Parts: sequence; structure tokens; C-alpha cells
Amino acid sequence: MNDRLHLPIHLRWGDLDAYNHVNNATMLKLLEEARVRAFWQPLPGESAPPTAVLASQPEAGVHTLIARQEIEYLEPIPYHRDPLEVQMWFGKLGGSSLEVCYEIYNNPGHPARVLYARSTAIIVIVDANTGKPTRLTEAMREAWEPYRGEPIQYRRR
Amino acid sequence: MNDRLHLPIHLRWGDLDAYNHVNNATMLKLLEEARVRAFWQPLPGESAPPTAVLASQPEAGVHTLIARQEIEYLEPIPYHRDPLEVQMWFGKLGGSSLEVCYEIYNNPGHPARVLYARSTAIIVIVDANTGKPTRLTEAMREAWEPYRGEPIQYRRR
Amino acid sequence: MNDRLHLPIHLRWGDLDAYNHVNNATMLKLLEEARVRAFWQPLPGESAPPTAVLASQPEAGVHTLIARQEIEYLEPIPYHRDPLEVQMWFGKLGGSSLEVCYEIYNNPGHPARVLYARSTAIIVIVDANTGKPTRLTEAMREAWEPYRGEPIQYRRR
Amino acid sequence: MNDRLHLPIHLRWGDLDAYNHVNNATMLKLLEEARVRAFWQPLPGESAPPTAVLASQPEAGVHTLIARQEIEYLEPIPYHRDPLEVQMWFGKLGGSSLEVCYEIYNNPGHPARVLYARSTAIIVIVDANTGKPTRLTEAMREAWEPYRGEPIQYRRR
Repeated sequence: MNDRLHLPIHLRWGDLDAYNHVNNATMLKLLEEARVRAFWQPLPGESAPPTAVLASQPEAGVHTLIARQEIEYLEPIPYHRDPLEVQMWFGKLGGSSLEVCYEIYNNPGHPARVLYARSTAIIVIVDANTGKPTRLTEAMREAWEPYRGEPIQYRRR
Repeated sequence: MNDRLHLPIHLRWGDLDAYNHVNNATMLKLLEEARVRAFWQPLPGESAPPTAVLASQPEAGVHTLIARQEIEYLEPIPYHRDPLEVQMWFGKLGGSSLEVCYEIYNNPGHPARVLYARSTAIIVIVDANTGKPTRLTEAMREAWEPYRGEPIQYRRR
Repeated sequence: MNDRLHLPIHLRWGDLDAYNHVNNATMLKLLEEARVRAFWQPLPGESAPPTAVLASQPEAGVHTLIARQEIEYLEPIPYHRDPLEVQMWFGKLGGSSLEVCYEIYNNPGHPARVLYARSTAIIVIVDANTGKPTRLTEAMREAWEPYRGEPIQYRRR
Repeated sequence: MNDRLHLPIHLRWGDLDAYNHVNNATMLKLLEEARVRAFWQPLPGESAPPTAVLASQPEAGVHTLIARQEIEYLEPIPYHRDPLEVQMWFGKLGGSSLEVCYEIYNNPGHPARVLYARSTAIIVIVDANTGKPTRLTEAMREAWEPYRGEPIQYRRR
């Protein structure tokens, strides 16, 4: 089994809804932030994981489009100050698309780890000019291959 | 084929992200709003569809929990003033859970209809006191059965 | 006394926070939406108030920048299906800036009107190329002058 | 001059709007998060500043209500991975209310510090049962007094 990325993502109290736990839709915002931090090249002076090979600006040569996302909610997430830990890996690296797998955990510092949610996103790499899918480059494959792992098997489908 | 619910849901310019179209995660907020309007009993003086049989307050006898959600993004959604049309139906009515299907379209007044996204949510009815799944009542089944339809078949899985 | 604009703005259940009423920060999102609908030219087939004279695209000749905003919270806003009514008028039309005044009410259809919040925003018109403030055009003044009124006097300052 | 609190607050890419910088309304969410981290007692195992003397749960003995908030936008905030630094202090500690002052800066690690925005919030302490304003306790005064400073003078009023 290969490596996973481990991304600390901070909650905000404003992520809670009237049920006093993190809103279901807002969880996709947390995963979006993990994805941005995993994929986008850091600005000068910032650090980023080795998977961060995509240019960060909309005018860049390639875009990433999300074609599909699936999420399974396992436990409600209460507010806390410690960042959540989002684990990410690649379930599949295709010709012009990839399957990104996520698990959302509480902070590794907690004595009792909790798996709050699991999610899968299908991302398509498109040419920014034509809008058409374009093949993953060698640089992308090299950066991402070490983080390949098993796709998530969902319980309810 | 049975009926679908047709729910007008207004966009906000603030739903757009830096790509200048509705943010992917925010689309789940739009579906959440459609679900609230479809399921929750109206307040005095408000009107609601016939499926609106659930008590709207957290302290009510039953809660709805989302166990899983899946969304397929087909076209980017630009900002416009007209409300989107969210179509909803039930792909399955189980013992204590249901499968809610959604399609997000532009306004029926547009000459060219666009299907922006499709989504499926698995919702579990739980007892507010025990937190355990509880069976759908007869009132729920009667209200929801007229809106049963085919589950969505996703292209990428 | 001159006219006010009356803009219906729909709530979303997701606007509520863990206190079960509309989040304080989110109220600025509601006012943002009222401002967009009041100021931006409608797309083909859409209708808009006579104040909607600004081009809606970021690449347009002028931008609007918010320099300052102030909001007074008077009553908590519960979720409801009816749109809120945001009333807007201009407290001041300066050389290159304007003072927009807002009051947020419940729906005019309610027997008991409630004033939930009052707000003032200072907006500066800037040239999209230079980023420098630019003078209000005659078209802007003509469109906005009929909606001039008294600036809001805040109780706590 | 007394001390200020220095709170690191992480941005999310999703905080950006179609202008590709942090949305004006969303900035109040960032300040809300700074306030929660400054005022609410930490959970077991968490750390918090010495000002964190309020119980964090809605069912607690006292609530905090925001009566008024004012914000001056000085520079657009681009996305970056480093947390922003929100500086907080008290412009006034009244009988049952307080004036909280904020300045939003980029990360202290940046060679060129930028002041993005300044804000003031008037917060009222209310009894959770009666909903009426209640006097600041001695514990609150002792915790907050070391962070008193000059109220913000706004340029445009």
C-alpha cells in the first residue's frame, strides 16, 4: 500500500448549521480546500506537498473540472479548534481524468480517532483554451503515482 | 412515469467562485434548500408542496440524516436572476430510508433548457430521541409515493 | 421623501447558524445579493429595477468597490420560505462614491412587519483598467437620483 | 499601549468570489472565527488565549449578541495558504457590552505586511434565559482588561 497525503484543514464555527454540527454541503468545501492545497503550486515562500504541480491561476494552461463527487457521511462533525485531518489518495489515474479519494478524520492528536466521512471525486484535466479534456502530463503522473491506493468501496449504493 | 416536484431555487451572485460560475460545493447548498422546501411543513401562511410532511424543528419527533450523496456536474452554472428549477423525485422508498433524486435545470422560461447537474441523496429517518433509524410512517409513504420514479443512472462510476 | 427599491431576497435554511437564526455574517451576503440585483444590468429576458445601469461583468469598464460597510442587528431572522424584503436607497451620491442604505424586513405579506437590520455601504466607482476612482456618469446619476433619501442614523456609535 | 490578541485564521480558496479575491461578506466570517477562538473556552486538550472565558455552548448561562458591526476594506485579499493574522483588542468595556476592534493582516512571516481591513463590533452580553442584557462579570473584566486599546478611527464616515 502506498502513501496518503495528510492535510490539516481548519474548521470554522460558521461551518455549523442549525443542528450544531458541520453542514453536509459545507463538507465539500473542506474537501475542496484539501484539494487546492494538494494540487496547486505554492506561492513563493509557501510550502506544499509534492503533488502540488498544477498552476494555481485560472488563466493557466490546464483547468481541473470536477465531473462527479460522492460522499458518505459517517459521523457528525462538532466544532473544534484543532484542524481536521483530510487524507487523500488516488484511486485511479486515467488518460485525462483521475479519481481522488478522501477520508475526513479528527486531528491525529486526539486519543480517539474518528472517521467522519469518505468521498470520491472524478476530476478531468481540460485545456484552458479549448475546454476539451487533455492527457495527464508525465510530470503529473510522476507526482501523483506514489499516492495511488485502493478506491473507496461505499456501503450504500 | 410519475410526477416530479419542481422547485424554484434562487441563485446568489455570492454562489460563484473565482471561475465565475456556481461553486461545485455550493450546488449541494442549492439541493439542500430544495429538500427543505420539499419536505418541511410550511409555517402558518406559507405554502408548500404535498410532500412537505416533516416537522421543521430540530426538536421534532424525527430527524432526517443524509447518509450519502452523489452529484454529477454536467454544465457550469452562470449567475442569473431567474430561479433555477430543481426537479426532485424518489428513486426508492425503503423501510427507514429513501433515495431522493435531483436534476438542476435553468428556469422553465428559458427557450433553451439546460440540465446542469444530477444528484442522488440517501436519507435516513431517525428517531430524535434515540438517534436510531425509525420506519417511514404511513403519512410519509402516502405523501411521497406519487413522486416515485426511476433512480438516476450515472455515466461515470 | 423619495422612493425606495424593494427587493425580494430568498433565505436558505443553510443561512442559519448553530443558534438557529440567520448568521450575522451571512446577512451581508443577503445585502450583496440585493445590491447585485439593484445595480447590474439584467441579462436578455430578465427584468431589473431602473437603477440597474452597471455592466455585470468583471471585465466591464467600471468596477464597484465597497470601501466600508456598517450593519446594525435589531432582531434575529428565523428561516422562512417567503423572501425577505430588502429596501434600498441612496443616502448620498458623491463625486465618485455613493452611500447605499438598506433595511431588511420580513415579507410585505406578513401581518406584523419586522425590521431585522439596517446597513450602510460606501461604494466607490473605479475604472477597471487603472483601478482609480472615476466620476459617476450622468446615466448613473439619473438612474439613482430618484432613490435618494435620508442616511441612516445609528443608535450605537 | 496594551496588548493585542494575534489569531491565525486560515483562508479557503472557496472564500474567493468571481473577482478572485476574498469576498467582502465572507470577511465577516473570518472575524467571526477569530472572535470564537478568542472568547470561547477551549475543549479538553485544546489551547486558547487568556480571553477565552465564555462557555461555548448555546445552552450556556450567557449569550453574546452582536448589536452592530462596521468594517473598512483597505486592500483586496488574495488566496494564500498561510493563515491571515487577525489582531483583536477591546476599544471599550461597558456595563453589559463591549467594543471589539479587529485588524486583518497577512501572515507575520511575510516580508511586506499588509493591512487588509479594520472592523469594530459591538457585543452585548445577554442572559440566556431572559434574553436581557446582563452585566459583565469580574472574570470577564479581568480577562479582557489587559487587551484594552484605542478604538478604531474610520476614515470615511
